[in-house]
Amino acid sequence: MKKRVVLALGGNALQKNGEATAEAQKKIAESVGEMIADLASKYEIIIAHGNGPQVGNVLIHEEAAATDRAPAMPLETAVAMTQGQIGYWLTQAINNAFVVRGKNTKVATVVTQVVVNRTDPAFKNPTKPIGQFYSEKEAKKLAKEKHWVVKEDAGRGWRRVVPSPKPVDIVEKKSILEMVRDGIIVIAAGGGGIPVYRTRVLKRLVGVDAVIDKDFAAEKLAELTGADIFVSVTAVPNAYIYYNTPAQVALSRTSVKMAEDYIRKGDFKSGSMLPKVQAAVEFAKKGGVGIITDVDSLKMALMGRAGTIITK
Amino acid sequence: MKKRVVLALGGNALQKNGEATAEAQKKIAESVGEMIADLASKYEIIIAHGNGPQVGNVLIHEEAAATDRAPAMPLETAVAMTQGQIGYWLTQAINNAFVVRGKNTKVATVVTQVVVNRTDPAFKNPTKPIGQFYSEKEAKKLAKEKHWVVKEDAGRGWRRVVPSPKPVDIVEKKSILEMVRDGIIVIAAGGGGIPVYRTRVLKRLVGVDAVIDKDFAAEKLAELTGADIFVSVTAVPNAYIYYNTPAQVALSRTSVKMAEDYIRKGDFKSGSMLPKVQAAVEFAKKGGVGIITDVDSLKMALMGRAGTIITK
Repeated sequence: MKKRVVLALGGNALQKNGEATAEAQKKIAESVGEMIADLASKYEIIIAHGNGPQVGNVLIHEEAAATDRAPAMPLETAVAMTQGQIGYWLTQAINNAFVVRGKNTKVATVVTQVVVNRTDPAFKNPTKPIGQFYSEKEAKKLAKEKHWVVKEDAGRGWRRVVPSPKPVDIVEKKSILEMVRDGIIVIAAGGGGIPVYRTRVLKRLVGVDAVIDKDFAAEKLAELTGADIFVSVTAVPNAYIYYNTPAQVALSRTSVKMAEDYIRKGDFKSGSMLPKVQAAVEFAKKGGVGIITDVDSLKMALMGRAGTIITK
Repeated sequence: MKKRVVLALGGNALQKNGEATAEAQKKIAESVGEMIADLASKYEIIIAHGNGPQVGNVLIHEEAAATDRAPAMPLETAVAMTQGQIGYWLTQAINNAFVVRGKNTKVATVVTQVVVNRTDPAFKNPTKPIGQFYSEKEAKKLAKEKHWVVKEDAGRGWRRVVPSPKPVDIVEKKSILEMVRDGIIVIAAGGGGIPVYRTRVLKRLVGVDAVIDKDFAAEKLAELTGADIFVSVTAVPNAYIYYNTPAQVALSRTSVKMAEDYIRKGDFKSGSMLPKVQAAVEFAKKGGVGIITDVDSLKMALMGRAGTIITK
């Protein structure tokens, strides 16, 4: 029986050196397609991906050019748009990698809503900067008009900040699971998923302007679909302690306890390696295998011979 | 056994009176959700939908605000973006309609590529206007820069025109079929699908800037998923001959032969009722039931008691 793997692709997995044209991003998607086609004979695959640069550009266009007749979409809908966009590029690239190998496959992107708690403390303290930079004056005017929270961003100007709540459920989990069982390679939870919460009484789904960390969303997807392995695919082959210092050490096989010690000591950069290690630890705690590695080492890492491999 | 139905929702099914905010469109999606929840106990449902106003707004934002760092996406990718956008609104609305009824369901939107022939005569004669209006001078400048074809649009200004080729295959057909068999309500082929062609030798998929008629795409989806019934859901309860004249007659049960006679006589408006009747005729020719009706009459039409019902 094939092992079931959830791959979380970094947002920069499709944009390199800021090359943001569709052409450039499709080109990079092709290498992802090759990678998936190489793995598909041995693994059932679910792919989650980031959308930072892509949703940023949607927001930039909308903020600059919205009119009454062509209004800007809320962030949650913009996330949905990037799921269509990136999902399309990935499904096409994977299809083509199979076609070139003379093989057939089934690949499908599912538009995915990820449930968060309305009471998540993140809603009281928005921290995630999105969209374009503004002057302080413009930013404060927009904050008033649009009920945004705005903050100064590391000396580069003012930006809107939104909450980054934790994922607690995935609306489409049953559909995604059925699809994987049918032999479909599924792309889901793009950009961390479209953030929604459930109303208290009726339990209706309501979209909310927030950004869910894509590693946390992908880990939740791995849990809910009974995956064996969760991999955060990033730009480096391992997680490191003392990163970028002479004492740098690549972590290979690592226990949950060790990884949690490193997290406590602040060894991983927040907003970068930290959420990846946290997600891998979370998955390992549930009894799975959590991996952090890059595209080149992925195949070996899945065989236990490369990458940072976290287990209970 | 449940009958399998493909519903093609008009692009104006989500935008009324030009109200283009996400809020207004979600509100209308709610009524679609109610309709689907009412039908789902008796039918397996696949939903296709238009995207005219939505993709128009994406293009308007991108054309107005594209920069080198945040470039405009090609039309095919913009279609993918609207599949995410509208698919999200519809899945959420359908989920909520079930939740309110105390029922569970599985609903999923699949990003869908629709294959066209690179040799389709439509590519030699682009006719479908998209995006914003320009002055003649601007339009001709853009035509040169971006290799667009531009045309004067009914005295309202100049616009880009793109080809509208016929759909010949649906890349995700097998996945969609598996999903329907698993009891999932599937939203697919939004906006007529992302237009792609297959390269001659390698058969690789390549996106192409075109717009596929959503009724033709939905009819193809109905064929390829073995549907029993294809319904073009539009703003009027029937197709009419002598429409908007004192002699107007609503068509009820209609044979393929009769419908083809009316088509030949020019009884249906091109770009409006004509493609709907053509799609229903096409489906009836293959042995299915092709229906044209509106949301209010849909339930009765599916029971054979309302709408224009075309059979062999």
